Amino acid sequence: MTHHTPQHQIQALIEQIEGLKNNMFEKDFLLTWERTPDEIEAIRLTAYALELMYYNNLTTRAFDGGLAVCNFRDKSTRTRFSFASAASMLGLSLQDIDETKIQVSHGETVRETANMISFLTEVYGIRDDLFIGEGHEYMKEVGDSIDDGYRAGCLPQRTTVINLQCDRDHPTQSMCDLLHLQKTFGSVQALRGKKIAMTWGYSPSYGKPLSVAQSIITMMTRYGMHVVLAHPEGYDLMPGMHDIAKKHAAASGGSFTFVTSMEEAFRDADVVYPKSWAPFRIMQERTKIVRAGEQKKLEALEKTALEENAKFKNWECTEQLMKLTRGGSAHYMHPLPADITDVNCKAGEVSKAVFEKYRYQTYHEAEHKLYAIAAMIINTRFKSAAQVLKKLLDQSHPRRIV
Amino acid sequence: MTHHTPQHQIQALIEQIEGLKNNMFEKDFLLTWERTPDEIEAIRLTAYALELMYYNNLTTRAFDGGLAVCNFRDKSTRTRFSFASAASMLGLSLQDIDETKIQVSHGETVRETANMISFLTEVYGIRDDLFIGEGHEYMKEVGDSIDDGYRAGCLPQRTTVINLQCDRDHPTQSMCDLLHLQKTFGSVQALRGKKIAMTWGYSPSYGKPLSVAQSIITMMTRYGMHVVLAHPEGYDLMPGMHDIAKKHAAASGGSFTFVTSMEEAFRDADVVYPKSWAPFRIMQERTKIVRAGEQKKLEALEKTALEENAKFKNWECTEQLMKLTRGGSAHYMHPLPADITDVNCKAGEVSKAVFEKYRYQTYHEAEHKLYAIAAMIINTRFKSAAQVLKKLLDQSHPRRIV
Amino acid sequence: MTHHTPQHQIQALIEQIEGLKNNMFEKDFLLTWERTPDEIEAIRLTAYALELMYYNNLTTRAFDGGLAVCNFRDKSTRTRFSFASAASMLGLSLQDIDETKIQVSHGETVRETANMISFLTEVYGIRDDLFIGEGHEYMKEVGDSIDDGYRAGCLPQRTTVINLQCDRDHPTQSMCDLLHLQKTFGSVQALRGKKIAMTWGYSPSYGKPLSVAQSIITMMTRYGMHVVLAHPEGYDLMPGMHDIAKKHAAASGGSFTFVTSMEEAFRDADVVYPKSWAPFRIMQERTKIVRAGEQKKLEALEKTALEENAKFKNWECTEQLMKLTRGGSAHYMHPLPADITDVNCKAGEVSKAVFEKYRYQTYHEAEHKLYAIAAMIINTRFKSAAQVLKKLLDQSHPRRIV
Repeated sequence: MTHHTPQHQIQALIEQIEGLKNNMFEKDFLLTWERTPDEIEAIRLTAYALELMYYNNLTTRAFDGGLAVCNFRDKSTRTRFSFASAASMLGLSLQDIDETKIQVSHGETVRETANMISFLTEVYGIRDDLFIGEGHEYMKEVGDSIDDGYRAGCLPQRTTVINLQCDRDHPTQSMCDLLHLQKTFGSVQALRGKKIAMTWGYSPSYGKPLSVAQSIITMMTRYGMHVVLAHPEGYDLMPGMHDIAKKHAAASGGSFTFVTSMEEAFRDADVVYPKSWAPFRIMQERTKIVRAGEQKKLEALEKTALEENAKFKNWECTEQLMKLTRGGSAHYMHPLPADITDVNCKAGEVSKAVFEKYRYQTYHEAEHKLYAIAAMIINTRFKSAAQVLKKLLDQSHPRRIV
Repeated sequence: MTHHTPQHQIQALIEQIEGLKNNMFEKDFLLTWERTPDEIEAIRLTAYALELMYYNNLTTRAFDGGLAVCNFRDKSTRTRFSFASAASMLGLSLQDIDETKIQVSHGETVRETANMISFLTEVYGIRDDLFIGEGHEYMKEVGDSIDDGYRAGCLPQRTTVINLQCDRDHPTQSMCDLLHLQKTFGSVQALRGKKIAMTWGYSPSYGKPLSVAQSIITMMTRYGMHVVLAHPEGYDLMPGMHDIAKKHAAASGGSFTFVTSMEEAFRDADVVYPKSWAPFRIMQERTKIVRAGEQKKLEALEKTALEENAKFKNWECTEQLMKLTRGGSAHYMHPLPADITDVNCKAGEVSKAVFEKYRYQTYHEAEHKLYAIAAMIINTRFKSAAQVLKKLLDQSHPRRIV
Repeated sequence: MTHHTPQHQIQALIEQIEGLKNNMFEKDFLLTWERTPDEIEAIRLTAYALELMYYNNLTTRAFDGGLAVCNFRDKSTRTRFSFASAASMLGLSLQDIDETKIQVSHGETVRETANMISFLTEVYGIRDDLFIGEGHEYMKEVGDSIDDGYRAGCLPQRTTVINLQCDRDHPTQSMCDLLHLQKTFGSVQALRGKKIAMTWGYSPSYGKPLSVAQSIITMMTRYGMHVVLAHPEGYDLMPGMHDIAKKHAAASGGSFTFVTSMEEAFRDADVVYPKSWAPFRIMQERTKIVRAGEQKKLEALEKTALEENAKFKNWECTEQLMKLTRGGSAHYMHPLPADITDVNCKAGEVSKAVFEKYRYQTYHEAEHKLYAIAAMIINTRFKSAAQVLKKLLDQSHPRRIV
């Protein structure tokens, strides 16, 4: 049947996007819970359409020049390359900010820098996840500064800020994971009633952001899933996160539960997501100590944190634990890189056997991130993503010449 | 009337450019005073046309591939992003030179590096402003080396060097400022007879280049302005600068005067440009000391320089001083980042109240730089900028797809 | 005659390429001796066609978006800019890997990183030439990892790895040098029977890779040249290299000989290629010491290596030695930067007089590298390079707008 051609599939997605109420134009994309269900759907469907276009060798250059700026204040592989890929597929030139090479050290304020880099900039991606209580605030300050310059007529366009992971949320990860689950189960409708276990996992390192767990429990509860969170005592998420997850679950017909053991979380789960993060209070303490420049206190704190972690080495995703899941074969997810026992550490979040079994799936999971970022760019930088996609589809210009 | 459409405006600019005598093709753009009035006009008008095209969503990709290389030997925000933006809007790929990652440390000569990076390079932007008597010489050596390779048939094109700030001149800043003044006063004709005060300002840091002040007094005297320079004793500009300014003033019907106080400079000024720079002789001394690697002498010199600066804390642009200007409301200019009293320092070039009042104007001022750079690229890399603009206008290809 | 127009020349090259048997699609380009004579010809002819297209202002954008990733684990000027230029001329966005900024330090494996950066990546260029026995192995591991992910359906395309210099081979250099010799002598056929002297040269530094010499003796023996290798005792190439050169010579009707003096090698040579490299055994030892982190041993070894080198200061390409070559005027080649006596060192590989005489030729030699890299990208990423070139030629879209 002709409606199964890629063109018809993409056409159908465009029609779905057209039907959504979407107020993201010229807005920053910082926290998914600030966006309506329709808006999340717009990102998901746009990402999916772009992925189909790429796989079917269609150009997706919505821009013919202009900058996509990124500022990674923490290490990154997947997100860095996903942002670069998204920029390239949309026709934007990537410009990486190196804060040591610009005038920040010469007393330039956030407000000023934000405007100075934005004249030809369509999108500004920021990762700032190291300090509890600071990352999101920084992104908001940047966004507000751009807004200020734009309203004053100093900028030709409202450059939009995209959160590439902050202390609170990791929206490009949760959107990417949503796309992965949709593909894994066939549709987002199929997610209804499925159980996903978002659990802490042991790591020999410390200081990992809390934002992945927070992004998952707030996103998956939107789609009617039964989300179960589990972590040891002291590893609480930031205040307010449970409430958002519960509110989303109530609206979608799913549920959100907190349990205190990996076993309980894994039982009959369709999906498991074991991932380490730092204890909230220790991270708060750490932020203060780092800001005060107290090196000795910092070392002491890191020692305490690692000792604390070490109490929970049994929080490892093993084959035995996996047996508790639905049919013994839940889907395993991880944003990577994982701490894999006997691969890159002595004891970690997941056993070698489990990770190896699911390794390709984690690669599949990662792939969607670049399309999610591209979708955020299109939806925040154009009034109608549907119009953009329609035009690209009409052109049907090949990305590769033959 | 139809001639007020952007297309007609751009068309009118193209006709003006066509009427100018222009010998910049395959020449480096290093010092504005080496260029004729017609050539400066060609840059100004091309920049203006490109800005109109950008604002009217017209593609300005004059190239379909090729490199724009930059080498920042000093920190930069505005100029770095302006160069990247200019490259992107013209269709060139940016390649940033990191001298620690290339073979310079393996004994590669300037002559060799210049040729090795130029095979597919249309333009090579350099910032080298830290050492008096060295920056311009370095750019000339690079330009001569490329010329040498090009004449010998080793390069497919004469890559042109663009000065992104040297010890003598900061042409992308003065062209950008000219565009800002044109917009502020309605036309370049309206600049005739206006008074601009280029003055030193106090800064708690030291070692700032002299080239902004030099670029302004030599540029604005070309347009019939009354340019008044003021600085404390010991803060002289490089030799020869006053002569150039006077020559330009004589030719344009403007004037150039030197006075010794900020008050005198500000009186009845239409525009004020208070900006710190280092004392010339100390900078000369500093270059020798740095080259000799004499760390102790350097520290002593820096102490002396700061003490010297501190004598002139009253060189601050305050509301009271602003009252002396025409109608008490002269336009305030600064290339940013400014040292703002009580914002990023205890005492600086400008008071918080004055800066806040003019903050947006300084953003507007900064915006034009990218178009100035793009105009320099087009005029040095194409025989006829008018032909390039005409072709782009005829295509009328949108930069954003919808 | 019309067949002398660039279009007809390019057309003729395309026809030649079409007649070749080529199995490089979706294969890594790591060692030239793994490729058949037809495949080497396909690279050479594609590079030549791309060069003609560039010089005749034809766009060569075979891609409309997508990434070209590079990872330079050692310094580079020519190869770095050649890779960037090749990416730009083909329409790919360059993304430079900085291993300190990605998650490698967080325990990410080679296998994982290779896949994570490849989702939108057409080509991955790697330089890893510092450690004997490691560079090629690393590239193979990356290639195998990508292959693994591609076969498992995790990647939309088989990103191909291009060797930008390893411990064994430097294929972009030898292809570039082949193109230079073809141009110098008029055709590859004219290389038959010509003598090329690949010799060691003295350098005051130490630790230079062996791969240039290895790449030259294995490449030029393919084209019927009489290749003579000369080096002091202790400066042997890696095992197996002579055999490959001999096999190639036997197949092409050329020859491969080893002699122990520069004089003997230079006698009646049509081309001389004096270039320093490190002693093989010392480099092997060095790799072990570096891996063990034995700083003191390393310093001792470096001292030994430099003392060893110093015994052979007479291995310098002088005017007197050049007199021994055919007609006293052999062509001089060097991949640059050279150690030039009295220019960037007291005693080096070549005298100032000889280098100055041939300086422009070394620039010409360097130019072809970017087209060689672009040809490797096209041949490994498209089933038919001929089809790509034909399409580009049919379009005849100008690279520069006027």
